[in-house]
Amino acid sequence: MDSFPSRPLAVSLGDPAGIGPEVVAKCWDGRSGFDLPPFVAIGDSRSIARVWDGPIELIDDPRQADTVFDYALPVIQIAAAEEDLPGHPSIAGAHCSLDSLEIAVGLARSGSAVSVVTGPVSKEQLYAIGFAHPGQTEFVAERCGVSRGNVAMMLAGPTLRTVPVTTHVPFAEVPAHLSSSLIEARGRTTLRGLQRNFGIAEPTLAVSGLNPHSGEGGMLGREEIELIEPAIAALRSEGWRVTGPHPADTMFHAAARARYDAALCMYHDQALIPLKALHFEDGVNVTLGLPIIRTAPDHGTAFDIAGQDSADPRPMASAIRLAALCSANRDLVE
Amino acid sequence: MDSFPSRPLAVSLGDPAGIGPEVVAKCWDGRSGFDLPPFVAIGDSRSIARVWDGPIELIDDPRQADTVFDYALPVIQIAAAEEDLPGHPSIAGAHCSLDSLEIAVGLARSGSAVSVVTGPVSKEQLYAIGFAHPGQTEFVAERCGVSRGNVAMMLAGPTLRTVPVTTHVPFAEVPAHLSSSLIEARGRTTLRGLQRNFGIAEPTLAVSGLNPHSGEGGMLGREEIELIEPAIAALRSEGWRVTGPHPADTMFHAAARARYDAALCMYHDQALIPLKALHFEDGVNVTLGLPIIRTAPDHGTAFDIAGQDSADPRPMASAIRLAALCSANRDLVE
Repeated sequence: MDSFPSRPLAVSLGDPAGIGPEVVAKCWDGRSGFDLPPFVAIGDSRSIARVWDGPIELIDDPRQADTVFDYALPVIQIAAAEEDLPGHPSIAGAHCSLDSLEIAVGLARSGSAVSVVTGPVSKEQLYAIGFAHPGQTEFVAERCGVSRGNVAMMLAGPTLRTVPVTTHVPFAEVPAHLSSSLIEARGRTTLRGLQRNFGIAEPTLAVSGLNPHSGEGGMLGREEIELIEPAIAALRSEGWRVTGPHPADTMFHAAARARYDAALCMYHDQALIPLKALHFEDGVNVTLGLPIIRTAPDHGTAFDIAGQDSADPRPMASAIRLAALCSANRDLVE
Repeated sequence: MDSFPSRPLAVSLGDPAGIGPEVVAKCWDGRSGFDLPPFVAIGDSRSIARVWDGPIELIDDPRQADTVFDYALPVIQIAAAEEDLPGHPSIAGAHCSLDSLEIAVGLARSGSAVSVVTGPVSKEQLYAIGFAHPGQTEFVAERCGVSRGNVAMMLAGPTLRTVPVTTHVPFAEVPAHLSSSLIEARGRTTLRGLQRNFGIAEPTLAVSGLNPHSGEGGMLGREEIELIEPAIAALRSEGWRVTGPHPADTMFHAAARARYDAALCMYHDQALIPLKALHFEDGVNVTLGLPIIRTAPDHGTAFDIAGQDSADPRPMASAIRLAALCSANRDLVE
């Protein structure tokens, strides 16, 4: 596959009333310090102009981004029906954010963009306009023709990558959602993602236990014995390097992290607590199992601080940089 | 209360076949660099001599420790009926570790020692000799005449202190173990402990949620609404500074940690994952709610590495140093 330099990354702005437009613009400002490749913003340029004084240039062909990027932030315009004030989301803004996402994914699918980075959306607003997916990840999976069971959400920071087996599930329902086949599927998606997106030829996956002390031989719970160990055995029988189940509390210090390429965790907070404790400013959400590269900053719309020029662009910059890195790795693999 | 200098800290060696004797001896070796006050080891001096070449002096009155400590490790001898090899625990060793714990707690109770630091024991071995407590913490509580429901296990590191509401409970049973009254009791014990042991006059307690995103207003679980918020309200009505419920994944980065003195967590791994991710080498277990000060290093017997001179003394040194600090704070308060 070529790595034709004129193909930019596509960055959807997310909800126009959130901090997405501000952080994307700040990434363009800091493109040199952040070491970012050319990208094109997809969304309503007015949502950027309201919060940023820099140069914007509307383009209609992603191939123009490469040239424009030197002197202005290239934007493919998706105008909202009404303009929102920062911090005041609306139905019109929700439509705009969904259209931006659709276009950004389409550009990556068609090969006009090398990958897609998605800005933060408001699920509440999206649900109000009939959006039927739990989040952007599942939407992107569907647009790529991949069953949502076969994608995995990775949180990637400089010294730790984690993948939760279950995600937005109430705590009490986690045990019922876990199965050997689900753990195995998420593990396989993660291992393949480490190869394809991160360029690790023989990745090592560390699998966590569910219970305190990983169940202490069944005394503190049996999911390790009944669900997790069989999944690990199945992955190993395919030749993958997989360790565990590990007690979750001793998996995330520096010496432990050095022993694996990613940690497969059983539930949301088990994966996200260590990631954000260690890498709050530079953790990136990467969707594994897709034909395209998709990353996102690991924060929300932050309506409460939108329009105050106080949003931190580092998570978005990390998401753009990692998308570029994954694209380069994938070009090497394929 | 006096702070009579000749009263040492009492340090029980834990299981004689574990790494307890080695790390306590190494703490004496490094007493100057670790900045440790005089302490007396309680246990079988032969378990130290087997793994360490330094000077040992047997004493029978804790008041001798202050003088001896300058040139030798003072030990109150509790001889095991048979000698164990490092890494090979026995029933005789279990009796020895229990007797050592009993004596150490007794010395602190009577005021002959300023506080007690407990070395790692093997629960399996203790259960084999009829030990009926879940762990050392509950044993110490009983010896101090405190109901185990009124003590709390704090994990304390340099930038984070956490207290789990539930501890060694299977994951699936955590929701059934949680109640407003338990959360409230643990919160109150923690707040009082921050005042008495840590010298914080007006402590702030951050309370975590149980579910992802703290339940997202009830969409992802209702424990926040039904159990946690009422407990927070009750503590606030008593005048305590209490915040939350906070989504657990965004509670533990540096800026978040700066906003509270301790985090009250709903379950074992929620408290221990961030603590050990950030402070694996210097996290200390502190029992709150006791009339005496009791700390412990946050590791086990490590039979697999016992006798190899490879055990890291830093956790034990942190436990001794924190016990001394808490004792000094308590002397100021009382």
